Amino acid sequence: MTDFARTKALFHMPEGVIYLDGNSLGPLPKAAPARMTQAMQDEWGEMLITGWNRGGRDGAGWMAQPVSMADRIGRLIGAEPGHVVLGDTLSIKVYQALAAALKMVPERRVILSDNGNFPSDLYMAEGLIGFLDKGYELRVVAPEEVEEALTEEVAVMMITEVDYRTGRMHDMPHLISKAHQVGALTVWDLAHSAGAVPVDLSGSNADFAVGCTYKYLNGGPGSPAFIYVAPRHAETAAPALSGWLGHEAPFAFDPSYRPGAGIERMRVGTPPVLALAALECALDIWDMTTMAEIRAASIALTDRFIAGIEAACPMLTLASPRDAGQRGSQVSFRFADGYAAMQALIARGVIGDFRAPDIMRFGFTPLYIDEGDVDAAVAIIAEVMAQKLWDRPEYRRRSRVT
Amino acid sequence: MTDFARTKALFHMPEGVIYLDGNSLGPLPKAAPARMTQAMQDEWGEMLITGWNRGGRDGAGWMAQPVSMADRIGRLIGAEPGHVVLGDTLSIKVYQALAAALKMVPERRVILSDNGNFPSDLYMAEGLIGFLDKGYELRVVAPEEVEEALTEEVAVMMITEVDYRTGRMHDMPHLISKAHQVGALTVWDLAHSAGAVPVDLSGSNADFAVGCTYKYLNGGPGSPAFIYVAPRHAETAAPALSGWLGHEAPFAFDPSYRPGAGIERMRVGTPPVLALAALECALDIWDMTTMAEIRAASIALTDRFIAGIEAACPMLTLASPRDAGQRGSQVSFRFADGYAAMQALIARGVIGDFRAPDIMRFGFTPLYIDEGDVDAAVAIIAEVMAQKLWDRPEYRRRSRVT
Repeated sequence: MTDFARTKALFHMPEGVIYLDGNSLGPLPKAAPARMTQAMQDEWGEMLITGWNRGGRDGAGWMAQPVSMADRIGRLIGAEPGHVVLGDTLSIKVYQALAAALKMVPERRVILSDNGNFPSDLYMAEGLIGFLDKGYELRVVAPEEVEEALTEEVAVMMITEVDYRTGRMHDMPHLISKAHQVGALTVWDLAHSAGAVPVDLSGSNADFAVGCTYKYLNGGPGSPAFIYVAPRHAETAAPALSGWLGHEAPFAFDPSYRPGAGIERMRVGTPPVLALAALECALDIWDMTTMAEIRAASIALTDRFIAGIEAACPMLTLASPRDAGQRGSQVSFRFADGYAAMQALIARGVIGDFRAPDIMRFGFTPLYIDEGDVDAAVAIIAEVMAQKLWDRPEYRRRSRVT
Repeated sequence: MTDFARTKALFHMPEGVIYLDGNSLGPLPKAAPARMTQAMQDEWGEMLITGWNRGGRDGAGWMAQPVSMADRIGRLIGAEPGHVVLGDTLSIKVYQALAAALKMVPERRVILSDNGNFPSDLYMAEGLIGFLDKGYELRVVAPEEVEEALTEEVAVMMITEVDYRTGRMHDMPHLISKAHQVGALTVWDLAHSAGAVPVDLSGSNADFAVGCTYKYLNGGPGSPAFIYVAPRHAETAAPALSGWLGHEAPFAFDPSYRPGAGIERMRVGTPPVLALAALECALDIWDMTTMAEIRAASIALTDRFIAGIEAACPMLTLASPRDAGQRGSQVSFRFADGYAAMQALIARGVIGDFRAPDIMRFGFTPLYIDEGDVDAAVAIIAEVMAQKLWDRPEYRRRSRVT
């Protein structure tokens, strides 16, 4: 049994803050600054260039970390060991996965997605289509229409499992099965899944998946993304972004590219060594639990939050699925003045976020949020709503990033 | 006048080490660990998600850093303010620049490069060509044949200014002028130029340029890359890698991509906040000098090194141009047993590196290398060569990364 009081104590939380935005940026693992100082002074500072071979906490070399650390994430998403690699940003990994998948279904021209997908995924697909200029179509349907839109025109279905605004969750195994029935491949964005809900990439027969590590995984601002390629595709997927660290022998400096073995080919450039040092401390905490325990505790927290808010705040309309089985680890409510209301909440220490046009979003993770936090947050939200505090002018001014 | 003794004192150097490999990975600025702790504890830890708006040493927000910090690099490479942005890795930035440039010369099908280009640049071009599958040709000639290969078939000339093995330097303004005469665009890789030699992107009429920050710029292992787009192309260049942070309004979460103003569109995903905190301390040191002073001191160091080695080590053959005007800030020698000889040198505290098949490479930067270091390195190299220490079996075993 995971002792969530113990994991909670391993994160730094500012005084007076109830942090319900770990679905956007996870909090700081207390161990991370010291590990980072060590990585900077004892590895970068003392080892210099030799750190590529002998750096890292395990001494196995900085160069090995993108694969060795990725396996610790792989466990959380049901990936086979050795089939995930860390690097780049999520948008880059989306491009890599989509480009590789499209090449594997060369006779088809439709990329199917839904309007609950994160916009950057759609933008990357747009950019790719415009660049290829070969008559590809990005077909974006409503989330509930994805299954019926899976026709034999579809080359690749590119979907975010958990909607970033509402937390609505797709039935991944079912959609993968349907996609395969029509001969389409699938690319899954796990940005709001990894560390939030159990994912079984292997058991679901997934083709490609990507995700980021700065949300539920708590890797820190700008920590790297990851990509998964199913073992059955690993030796045939063509990396459109074919960088030297994906080469079979990066340090042979061959004039021509030869893709590396399996997932190694999805590496591109130099690994983000310092970011990985921080991420490592977050993964240490993840090693203390299982996704089954996280999920059970997460459902208890989100159900409790929904019940509390609905009892106290009739102005707020639930935007997330009421059925926990169809919901990720966040809860969203619609409110016309949601932006200002969220600013009023943040001023009182309850940090969630706002997504246009009217979504107030609250993320929950048992690693550092407990029932006491939920009850305290509900009380503050109830007060802000009852007193109409969102109506003050100082909360209506927009900042650049919300 | 730059006080190079003062800048040298701002870097950490391991006891007993003469570090001549800053062309591969620059050393640790002493101020960086404390700044990183601050970024982790006071920004990530305390500000959490609000750091995007108010984080950073200047409090202007993490989100602003990729452009504001890039201008400090722009000064070193002759870029117009506001036309450089940081992010991703160099290979990704090569792809972005090349993809954008190709779209601007749609009727041509040849990418011209030379075999002195860094392999990853060629690999990225190969991947892009294979992915596009439109009859593009990557034409790789010898460095001295580039000018004559500039025909009206050429869409884009993609060149690394300073050869990573020998330090041979192309005449950038001349080649750009020749390329433009035949209607080709240019992409310059400044990996071994930025912080090494004066570059005048604006005065040279450059189109696109890319570079990394972990070599001469001392940003740390895996620190981000940068990209420059000339002002005349900034509003027309199409970003094939069209991520949300390159969108005109990233936080509007529009369903369709609209490229941001100018260089902003070359942003892709979430900025590497922690890596930028380390890089910032390196740029503080760069702010203390000018590229003209760096260049004069660099030439004095490399000339002194060549003279010393040639006098003491007849077995070593100069692989770099003897004319300092054609040489970057590194000196390479050819030696058949170069790999083993470099291991013997590293064991004695002189850190350079080896590049196949027979290049022993030594980088010099006046920021932290002085004449005393050059003389001490020459003495140790002379001893290793005279005593044939490379012939010991322990130096012949290859490590993965060299």
